[in-house]
Amino acid sequence: MGLCASEVEKRIREWVPMAEDIDLRIEEIRENYSKIRIPFQDKAIRPGGTISGPVMMTAGDTAMYAAILGTLGEVAMAVTSNLNINFLQRPAPCDLIAEGTILKLGKRLAFCEVEIRSEGSDDLVAHVTGSYSLPVK
Amino acid sequence: MGLCASEVEKRIREWVPMAEDIDLRIEEIRENYSKIRIPFQDKAIRPGGTISGPVMMTAGDTAMYAAILGTLGEVAMAVTSNLNINFLQRPAPCDLIAEGTILKLGKRLAFCEVEIRSEGSDDLVAHVTGSYSLPVK
Amino acid sequence: MGLCASEVEKRIREWVPMAEDIDLRIEEIRENYSKIRIPFQDKAIRPGGTISGPVMMTAGDTAMYAAILGTLGEVAMAVTSNLNINFLQRPAPCDLIAEGTILKLGKRLAFCEVEIRSEGSDDLVAHVTGSYSLPVK
Amino acid sequence: MGLCASEVEKRIREWVPMAEDIDLRIEEIRENYSKIRIPFQDKAIRPGGTISGPVMMTAGDTAMYAAILGTLGEVAMAVTSNLNINFLQRPAPCDLIAEGTILKLGKRLAFCEVEIRSEGSDDLVAHVTGSYSLPVK
Repeated sequence: MGLCASEVEKRIREWVPMAEDIDLRIEEIRENYSKIRIPFQDKAIRPGGTISGPVMMTAGDTAMYAAILGTLGEVAMAVTSNLNINFLQRPAPCDLIAEGTILKLGKRLAFCEVEIRSEGSDDLVAHVTGSYSLPVK
Repeated sequence: MGLCASEVEKRIREWVPMAEDIDLRIEEIRENYSKIRIPFQDKAIRPGGTISGPVMMTAGDTAMYAAILGTLGEVAMAVTSNLNINFLQRPAPCDLIAEGTILKLGKRLAFCEVEIRSEGSDDLVAHVTGSYSLPVK
Repeated sequence: MGLCASEVEKRIREWVPMAEDIDLRIEEIRENYSKIRIPFQDKAIRPGGTISGPVMMTAGDTAMYAAILGTLGEVAMAVTSNLNINFLQRPAPCDLIAEGTILKLGKRLAFCEVEIRSEGSDDLVAHVTGSYSLPVK
Repeated sequence: MGLCASEVEKRIREWVPMAEDIDLRIEEIRENYSKIRIPFQDKAIRPGGTISGPVMMTAGDTAMYAAILGTLGEVAMAVTSNLNINFLQRPAPCDLIAEGTILKLGKRLAFCEVEIRSEGSDDLVAHVTGSYSLPVK
């Protein structure tokens, strides 16, 4: 019923044009979990050589959406209700890895957490929590 | 010491490439206040004909940044520390207007609020609060 | 259909025991709006002579609840879904005034904002946003 | 340099009177980690027989503070800067267990996450993230 990584990537690139802009890749999908990669590109940088906030927010939002699509299937109309992001450290100028987890899957709302790191590092670059409003079946 | 609307727009387009992608316009800058416009474009839409979440987060983050640049001048290194967004209503397929206000300007942190509406409407589409970490002088 | 200030105060003191502990007063109720007072008391202080965070969170949560009760009537089962608070300035050792506004009243969710100030001051001490999940009728 | 569980409990009860009201117990302190218990008491309930939101916010805030005191020692003046709480499920009428983790300890800010569960259950009742502003040494 859920979708695999390549299906999720195809859907998200069709549905969320900014995901296409940042060349978002879905690396892994399991039940209640997603792992996505945002390849480093020069256009994402901001003063100080770091990656701009909106790129990381897009990564966070998309990791939540990917975990939901991977778990529930084609619920295109699931929409973000709330997103809270804390920026913890300037990311290195390399790919970002975002791992999304569904912490609570209710009937009307899915609550998720996303950890964003620079590739190859254990330190958190940003931490996201948020909820998606689910379509009534 | 602060910057005017055209200076802020020039700086943000140089520094935040995603602002360029969404063709962000700075409409008005006053002390502790910014008004920005995100012209409607097809690439911003998502299922349901509405504008995608990351576009609205970018608008919210940029409105905060614009209010800070307009008030403090060229503090390029001010970086988002926290951003919290609530999506309240699907936006109409038209331009978005985001108004940013600095609610508290401390030495180390600026706390801001952003109201996002569809052009010509009084209803809130999304509501953002967030804090920027300010560079030590 | 909504409740007046004294009714709201009575209900909240019955239903939320912590509101009783902090001697919460409902000062004013209008549609989509509440104004509450938290009288200063020694037990609320914390190191530095300031009022402790949980007192301000309770004030924020209760101001939202009061605005909802005042607007929708006896919806005791409305429950907080999300609350985000930013502490902006140490409050003076005097009464706190919290003003709650419903920014969006949907069928399933009410989204609110609360401004908390020390009595007699214009400066924000804390800023709260949050959503209440509304019971299905 | 950090404090042990009984020292943290003593300090918090002195400093945060609401912690005394809810009879907060510090069960375990390790570097970057705290585990606290809020014994069930009738005064914490709200309509529906569940525990009121402010009790859970107090638990979340205190678990963050306990992890910081346990790690950094007597930094009484560390103050909450931001707290975001999501309520995921009505807690059972029994003790609450809150586990706080410091995800990032910077010079000026500590960013923490708290998971709140009913005792004996694996399901999250509430999820908290927040940051404490640290005193300059």
